[in-house]
This record gives sequence, structure tokens and C-alpha cells, in this order.
Amino acid sequence: MTVKIAVMGTGMVGRAIAVRLAQLGHDVVIGTRDPQQTLARTSPEDSRTECYAEWQRGQPSMRLVSLPEAGAHGELVVNATLGASSLEAFQSVGSTKLAGKIILDLALPLDRSGTSPRLLFALTDSLGEQIQRSFPEARVVKTLCTVSAKVMIEPGRVPGRHSMFVAGDDKGAKQAVTQLLTELGWPAQEVIDVGGIEAARGLEMYAPLLFALAGALGTWDLNIAVVRAAA
Amino acid sequence: MTVKIAVMGTGMVGRAIAVRLAQLGHDVVIGTRDPQQTLARTSPEDSRTECYAEWQRGQPSMRLVSLPEAGAHGELVVNATLGASSLEAFQSVGSTKLAGKIILDLALPLDRSGTSPRLLFALTDSLGEQIQRSFPEARVVKTLCTVSAKVMIEPGRVPGRHSMFVAGDDKGAKQAVTQLLTELGWPAQEVIDVGGIEAARGLEMYAPLLFALAGALGTWDLNIAVVRAAA
Repeated sequence: MTVKIAVMGTGMVGRAIAVRLAQLGHDVVIGTRDPQQTLARTSPEDSRTECYAEWQRGQPSMRLVSLPEAGAHGELVVNATLGASSLEAFQSVGSTKLAGKIILDLALPLDRSGTSPRLLFALTDSLGEQIQRSFPEARVVKTLCTVSAKVMIEPGRVPGRHSMFVAGDDKGAKQAVTQLLTELGWPAQEVIDVGGIEAARGLEMYAPLLFALAGALGTWDLNIAVVRAAA
Repeated sequence: MTVKIAVMGTGMVGRAIAVRLAQLGHDVVIGTRDPQQTLARTSPEDSRTECYAEWQRGQPSMRLVSLPEAGAHGELVVNATLGASSLEAFQSVGSTKLAGKIILDLALPLDRSGTSPRLLFALTDSLGEQIQRSFPEARVVKTLCTVSAKVMIEPGRVPGRHSMFVAGDDKGAKQAVTQLLTELGWPAQEVIDVGGIEAARGLEMYAPLLFALAGALGTWDLNIAVVRAAA
């Protein structure tokens, strides 16, 4: 079934997931604060990411729209903005347009100003919860933030079985997101429902271990498999 | 090789690991602030844990000593105190007695006053780092805090392969701790060195995900296996 999807954020993660979702047959737009400004940028975003306009030339069918337009388009909204500015981005979409919609929140709230990235506000809160609190009529599902952008959309980069997590207060939204995850290549039996949106804390706070593992093992093509005793 | 080990902390975790290490042939004492007071307590610590004196009757060869005595005894000191009071416990041992020694820190710095436990001071710090900073001549290794007390000492409760982590600044100390982990049943090839003591943040901040998984799956007999692409 074709889903109308708005991917918020033009960074590496947003681009990667937008292209993959479009390849899967979904009706995808990318939302950004100021499309003209995003297209006018000529310098690469960072060492790994070419400037948007250059990338866009290789993706002629991908539509870049403003955040409110993206919000109007999407039945499902993917939060791939920088975690530090996610709330601001959703505020410019507005709560009316977000009411009833599924927000697939894959962003990590990171402060990248120091030598190593650090989480902005976990411990007794999480970005997932903040978005849900700010937009109580939206249905937020936290997922995908426990793996690299490449593994998100191509879990087969990591061999064998390994786990993905969903957290959110709305069962139906978690089911819809799990369906999308299976389309991305995550086997349904490896998607673990870890509970309500409060469990987003655990998914976001796993980031420092993920970063340490990537450093220690020298690869981002890694994930964890939850192993448990037979019931 | 017999190691002289001091287990700091008389709670469920300290008792379990002390008995197991003694069974393995090590020379183990348990350290507590006030041994007489600990032995005089007659009420259970909580619903899962009998009072110490009752437990001690089943472990007649286990010696309960003061923290300074325990510090003098141990070549390797296991931190199984409550994370919130670990620094205080080590201060009463004193930096002189801890100089050069290995501190195997398995404690989670949790505030258990609320409805669900929350971490006390992660994000830009960790208990492991605090202990290392406070006792620069000790050699702190963070490990074991990513699984339940039962799985720590009996990893076979979880079937198949799954991972354990060590973090610390001293290579030799990590090797000695890894040796002890293999004696507890952790295969050496499943013990991942995640880096210096700063990586203790990742191990401690994994706790909310562990708690969410235990809740969602209905068991503490669980762990994660790190899966990565072949090099």
C-alpha cells in the first residue's frame, strides 16, 4: 500500500530514508525550513555529505517542500531533523496538520559541538517524549535511532539476526511503523515493542554505547541482537 | 590462580558474585560500612533479598569485614555497592589502600526513589569515570552492569552467543578482569573492549533499554549480542 510520507530533514539520514521509501513505492516528499535556501547552498554539509542541490540532481523525482507543505502531504511524518531542532521544525508544521498523524521519530538529540557527540536531554526525558508531549494528537513512534543511517534502510548490511525496537503510546501507529520497517528489510519477528513512548529514553540513551562500539570495532555496520531465555 | 578479592556491598548483587567467586577458588571477603550493624539487621532488605545474617548462615565460610579491611585484603575490588554511595564507600577505604589495585565496577548509579529507577549522573559523566577520577592510582574497569545479577555470574542462563563489555584506561586491568569474566562463564571472544573509562557512560546509559527490554519480554534472563559485518 502506498503511504504518503513526509521526511523532515535534508541531511544524510533524511535523504537516505526518503530515497529508500520512494523506491519502495511510497509517495515521498522531503521537508525543509526554507527550500530555496537549501537548494542555494553550494558547499558540502560535511566531509561525508554533498550539498543538497548536487544530491537532488541524482534524484530528479524527489520533491523538496517547506515544512508546512510536507506536514500537509504526509500521513506519516519521518523526523530526520537534527534532534536539537526537531521541536522547532514540528512547531512550524503546526499541531493542526500533525493531529492524528504518525510521527516516526528516528532522530538522536545530540550536541555535536564538543569533541564527541553527547545527548542533550535524556535521563528523565527524551526527544520522543518531548515531541509526543508537544503534539498530543500526533502518534509518535521512536525507532531506528539505534543503528547507522545505512543500516536503517539496509539491515542486511549486518549479517544474521539482529533487533530493531519501537516505542510509542499508540498500538496502531507502532503496527504501521513495524509494517514500514519490514518493507525496509527488518523481519517482523526482530522488531521488539519496548513499551510506551517513555521507552524512547532507552533507545536514545543507547547512543553512547553504539558510538563506543563503532569506535572499538571500526565499523558502523553493526547492531545488537536481543537474546533471551526461552519462555 | 587464586586472586584475593574484596566485594564491596552486601546487597543481592554483592552476595551473588562473592559466592560465585569463592566457588571458583578465589580468596573472597565482603566489605560493608559497619559489619556489626549489617549482621544485626533482622528485616529483609526487600521482597527478593533475605536479611544478611540469615544469608550468612548458609555461607559460613564467607567473611564480612569493614570497608578498610576489605580494601586491605583485595588485590581486586568489586564495586557492588549502591551506585549512589559508591564514592563514599571507596573514600572510607582510602586512596592509599586502593593504589595500583583493580576496581571491577559493576554498579549502576540509580535513583530508586521514583516509580521507575533513573540514572543519577550520566550524559557527560559516569560512575566509572567518577571512581577513576577520585582514585587516579586505582585501575577502574567498568563491566557486568549491562546484565542482571543472575546473568552476571551465570551467562549460560541466556542461550547462544551474547556479549559482555569492558571499559577502562588500563589494558592490564582489562585483561585481568576479562580473565575473571571467562571464569564466570563469559567466553573471551564475547568480551568486547569498548575503550577507555569514558566508555563507561555507554555501559551505564544502556540501563534504561535493559529495563525496558526486561519489562517488555517479561524476563531478566536476557542480554544483547553485538553483530557486525565481517571485516
